[in-house]
Amino acid sequence: MPAREDYFAVMFENDKLVYLDQTKLPTEEEYVETDDVERIAEAIERLEVRGAPQLGVVGAYGFALGLKRDPSNAAAERAYRRLVETRPTAVNLKWALDRAMEEYRRGSEDDAYDRLVAFAAALHRDDAEKCRRIGENGLAMFKKRSTALTHCNTGKLATGGDGTAFSVLKTAHERGMLKYVYADETRPLLQGSRLTAYELDKSGVPFSILADNAAATLFQRGEIDLVVVGADRIAANGDAANKIGTYNLAVLCAYHDVPFYIAAPTSTIDASIASGEEIPIERRDGEEVRTFRGTRVADKRHDAYNPAFDVTPAELIAGIATERALHEPPYRFER
Amino acid sequence: MPAREDYFAVMFENDKLVYLDQTKLPTEEEYVETDDVERIAEAIERLEVRGAPQLGVVGAYGFALGLKRDPSNAAAERAYRRLVETRPTAVNLKWALDRAMEEYRRGSEDDAYDRLVAFAAALHRDDAEKCRRIGENGLAMFKKRSTALTHCNTGKLATGGDGTAFSVLKTAHERGMLKYVYADETRPLLQGSRLTAYELDKSGVPFSILADNAAATLFQRGEIDLVVVGADRIAANGDAANKIGTYNLAVLCAYHDVPFYIAAPTSTIDASIASGEEIPIERRDGEEVRTFRGTRVADKRHDAYNPAFDVTPAELIAGIATERALHEPPYRFER
Repeated sequence: MPAREDYFAVMFENDKLVYLDQTKLPTEEEYVETDDVERIAEAIERLEVRGAPQLGVVGAYGFALGLKRDPSNAAAERAYRRLVETRPTAVNLKWALDRAMEEYRRGSEDDAYDRLVAFAAALHRDDAEKCRRIGENGLAMFKKRSTALTHCNTGKLATGGDGTAFSVLKTAHERGMLKYVYADETRPLLQGSRLTAYELDKSGVPFSILADNAAATLFQRGEIDLVVVGADRIAANGDAANKIGTYNLAVLCAYHDVPFYIAAPTSTIDASIASGEEIPIERRDGEEVRTFRGTRVADKRHDAYNPAFDVTPAELIAGIATERALHEPPYRFER
Repeated sequence: MPAREDYFAVMFENDKLVYLDQTKLPTEEEYVETDDVERIAEAIERLEVRGAPQLGVVGAYGFALGLKRDPSNAAAERAYRRLVETRPTAVNLKWALDRAMEEYRRGSEDDAYDRLVAFAAALHRDDAEKCRRIGENGLAMFKKRSTALTHCNTGKLATGGDGTAFSVLKTAHERGMLKYVYADETRPLLQGSRLTAYELDKSGVPFSILADNAAATLFQRGEIDLVVVGADRIAANGDAANKIGTYNLAVLCAYHDVPFYIAAPTSTIDASIASGEEIPIERRDGEEVRTFRGTRVADKRHDAYNPAFDVTPAELIAGIATERALHEPPYRFER
């Protein structure tokens, strides 16, 4: 297990997957070690592991472990099906499992387990390298030693490496360009106060959490130099879908003349859609707003408006850091 | 007790104070009946009753009940001291108690209890009448049948009548000018989802609650016709301090060209201060942000930025409804 001053979300060690159970954060720091594909599927279902890129990595390791004792075609099919059904909307998970299955079919059963472990490790390394480059490319957002504001969770707990927006913050911190971070709590699921606060603390970055609605006062007082957040999907014109509350920050930036940045791997760019108008917004269960972690705050009968994401128009985005570059407007992403 | 379709926050009946215990809302609807000044002081301390104007009314009734069995000067002093110490920053409470003490000293001990009950009832009626007039004066905010957004709690549960911003909404609803209300949950203390939702439901107004950070998407989609909120303190130039998150809404209104209104009694106007820059902002305990109704969401060690209020500059305020008028900019309130 790692020392207290470090942490990881996912690791493959001694033929086992080791992961930090994110449902226990921030009150408990519990690592789970398993080589059971069923246990891994349950971990995905229970959100013990989460975050789009991380689910791809976990899925690939899980598929490999499904072949550890029985490398037969039937075992591979079983592992694939069990894992792919855990989170039907997780695009990265299905993508990783499809590629793992292709890799399985490319060779013999004899070395299938070893080949698939190597495949998963490569995917993991590749994701970590992309995170590293996003961080490097994002450094140009910092014109001076700055105070940044971020939203939701975008670090190790969501990716296979140091994250997207979080990697930018961490890199800036390491180069002495980051003064302070304000992390929105990010209602309704509070990924900011539960997860991002944990990651900032572990990385030694000085920070405060705050209620989402308090950020505006920091802009009013001129305390925020830049905002950097992740993205779930980016259209060809640069319009970006991200966690609910992101558009609010982009408006605060525009009104107070503060640059608003996105950090995301190019795999997030969906150039097949021309603009954000084509991005469907998932409306989630109102119980997320009416309760928190089982604590009721509003009557069950009351309607709650609960969009999972919002779309920030490209004209409000000062730059998009990917593993390739810090893209600047006007954005013209191609297929 | 009132029927299910109606409710009240505070009532004086059969020589007893009857109040709705707001700490139990929204899960339980429990009225408490007492003529014990100590029990009333505890109710104020435990926030079973709350809201600046309401505390004045409750304090006055409590003082009167302190004389019910013993109208002596010592009893009056005891009741005054016990009640005034419950919430040292509640200006309305002290103001009401000071005036009640003056009234006590104006006559004899013989009829002191009756005189003080009459004094409290007059204060209560006066507050209710002010609320009614604020609602009437606020009607001019509605140019057509509109969808409004509000923040925090401003209704019966906070005042001696139908409220401030809530009275405007209720009056518009009764006159067929209100289509729908979106009520911000209002982190950290969730007065919107706990209390305003309860009041909107009781008043038959169609509504949704929402996480504070989701409001921006409603503006983006053109769904909000106006915003109306209360105020804690208004400067001579119209700058208004109100619950944290209010300034964020004012910026969203400015950016999306939606009118932003305040509704508050003239007692909220402090013409002795020239502008909002002179209004001190209370920073509250970070535990309010790190917990969610007692459920921990962030590590106790982490800093949390938790201002109780923010100040909205007058230039973002389209109008201020008081019991006198719907004041329009430029605001020049005089002492």
